[in-house]
Amino acid sequence: MNDRFLRACRREPVDRTPIWLMRQAGRYLPEYRTLREKYDMLTMCRTPELAVEVTLQPLRRFDLDAAILFSDIMIPLAAMGVDFNIVESVGPVVANPVRDQRGADALRVIEPERAVPFVIEAVRLLRRELRVPLIGFAGAPFTLASYIVEGKPSRELLLTKKLLHCDPPAWHALMDKLAQTIAAYLLAQIRAGAQAVQLFDSWVGVLSPRDYREFVLPHSKKIFAALAPTGVPRIHFGTGTATLLELLKEAGGPATGSGPAVIGVDWRVPLDHAWERLGDVALQGNLDPAVMLTSPDSVEQHAHEILAQAHGRRGHIFNLGHGVLPNTPLENVERLIEVVHSHGK
Amino acid sequence: MNDRFLRACRREPVDRTPIWLMRQAGRYLPEYRTLREKYDMLTMCRTPELAVEVTLQPLRRFDLDAAILFSDIMIPLAAMGVDFNIVESVGPVVANPVRDQRGADALRVIEPERAVPFVIEAVRLLRRELRVPLIGFAGAPFTLASYIVEGKPSRELLLTKKLLHCDPPAWHALMDKLAQTIAAYLLAQIRAGAQAVQLFDSWVGVLSPRDYREFVLPHSKKIFAALAPTGVPRIHFGTGTATLLELLKEAGGPATGSGPAVIGVDWRVPLDHAWERLGDVALQGNLDPAVMLTSPDSVEQHAHEILAQAHGRRGHIFNLGHGVLPNTPLENVERLIEVVHSHGK
Repeated sequence: MNDRFLRACRREPVDRTPIWLMRQAGRYLPEYRTLREKYDMLTMCRTPELAVEVTLQPLRRFDLDAAILFSDIMIPLAAMGVDFNIVESVGPVVANPVRDQRGADALRVIEPERAVPFVIEAVRLLRRELRVPLIGFAGAPFTLASYIVEGKPSRELLLTKKLLHCDPPAWHALMDKLAQTIAAYLLAQIRAGAQAVQLFDSWVGVLSPRDYREFVLPHSKKIFAALAPTGVPRIHFGTGTATLLELLKEAGGPATGSGPAVIGVDWRVPLDHAWERLGDVALQGNLDPAVMLTSPDSVEQHAHEILAQAHGRRGHIFNLGHGVLPNTPLENVERLIEVVHSHGK
Repeated sequence: MNDRFLRACRREPVDRTPIWLMRQAGRYLPEYRTLREKYDMLTMCRTPELAVEVTLQPLRRFDLDAAILFSDIMIPLAAMGVDFNIVESVGPVVANPVRDQRGADALRVIEPERAVPFVIEAVRLLRRELRVPLIGFAGAPFTLASYIVEGKPSRELLLTKKLLHCDPPAWHALMDKLAQTIAAYLLAQIRAGAQAVQLFDSWVGVLSPRDYREFVLPHSKKIFAALAPTGVPRIHFGTGTATLLELLKEAGGPATGSGPAVIGVDWRVPLDHAWERLGDVALQGNLDPAVMLTSPDSVEQHAHEILAQAHGRRGHIFNLGHGVLPNTPLENVERLIEVVHSHGK
């Protein structure tokens, strides 16, 4: 098996820099769009054979060093009692947003094997098929809470911030239920065969460090503490987190003894600066996905600059700073992977 | 005249920390909403008596240390040839977005006294009325370009990034025309009586430092270089700029000899960290405007923490990290100003 990705997570020497891409299975692939004409997003997530097929699609085309389970961060929430739908070109829309203690109390902590058996089954099936490591994932409590509180995607997350400042007990109750569910959900994925997991706190960058410490850190910490005994690499990712990196690392727990902590950084943070600040972690990132909309040459130039920043360091996993965008040309993905794999040869 | 704000810009001792609020004239004020029932946004910006009235509204209620001209960053663009409207609960919508060299070439550099005489007149009228300093302002080239390229407000600014990466000559042509116009526009405001100016690069935080350096810095630099001989304080503001602060400072030019440079920071960057990195500048900020939606006590707690970070430093101008939100309760604004003014007494 190609274990370049796992070795980089552990900051061991690798023959070349591993690369995978957030949302590497998605709309930019014609074969994905063909499937999506027949099935809606939630059906694809809830049908193990479809989730497996979509997960494998990018690996047939590209020389990627890891697979990530095809799913959606909202998936475990339905069984908790969150009534949502994924609306085309809008995103997750929640029919019963939670904005008080009663709403938080009404949510249930799930047992993943019973609540989302299709996810666990997809992980099992994938492990048989794959010759690269399989990454499981979940949304982080803050990012999931933001959808549950706002009721729909929002730029500023004002209702979320209002809840956490105005009703801290209700906020912490909601976050605690999410943390329990997510910890169980990721552990179930690991038991089923996931060889690494990524926690997506995509929108946490709207918070100040002081608010992150008070309202998010304790909950994300619980999740990583529950995962640590498994020893699998744990990737902690967010966007706009330039001033939160130390806290994301703190949430991830110690990098040694209990498996490695990997921090995912977006394009706003030069990798060398991030390493100066964080020290003994592996870093994942960090090409701006918008650059992937341009030309192979522009992609190559930006990729070289990122690889140069990582030079001489163990523990770099190349990725974008956020998910692949729907209009990304395939030739740009092709070139990016070539450039990363041939670097330093 | 109360010159606490100007003294803090110059990092001179002050009797108490000055405070003003971005968008302090706006929807959270009942008297503003009453006027807006009669006039649309653009009419208010283009009628000097109305712009003056709205500028003065928050000063009648609150003990603010500066006034900022009521206007919109899109105002100078109409005379350049940008056909836009400000659409209720959407924002600026541009009928003829610029996405190539031809579009950039079609724009005109304006002479502000002829193109936007109503703005210059409003500044003149305000200077007669005010007993606090008057701040003039403009949108920065990147942020204005983003509206002109996207055609409407956008979260990720993908079309903007695509243009700058795929057609750098067209991008630089657009940015250069904007820089020339904005420099002339701010100089005209200063001649008419503005005692400080703020350049709003509100959305520049979507860029990596390397892309900022290549595609934005040269143009913002031209503006600050044109303003430096006037000696008035120049505030350079953006959101999500944690990794761009040094570059925002560089764009602002030397802080001494030609009047002070002030950097506006949002709530993501603790003030003491920003000062450690930037050294000899004044800082403006940085309470999360979402905190202003909560309670007077929560506002007070957050304000105290920010004041503590600024402790012992000259050159702190208290502000929010972005504009006042429409639903902000008046009592929270009242409390904030009280807390800032009584700090250290």
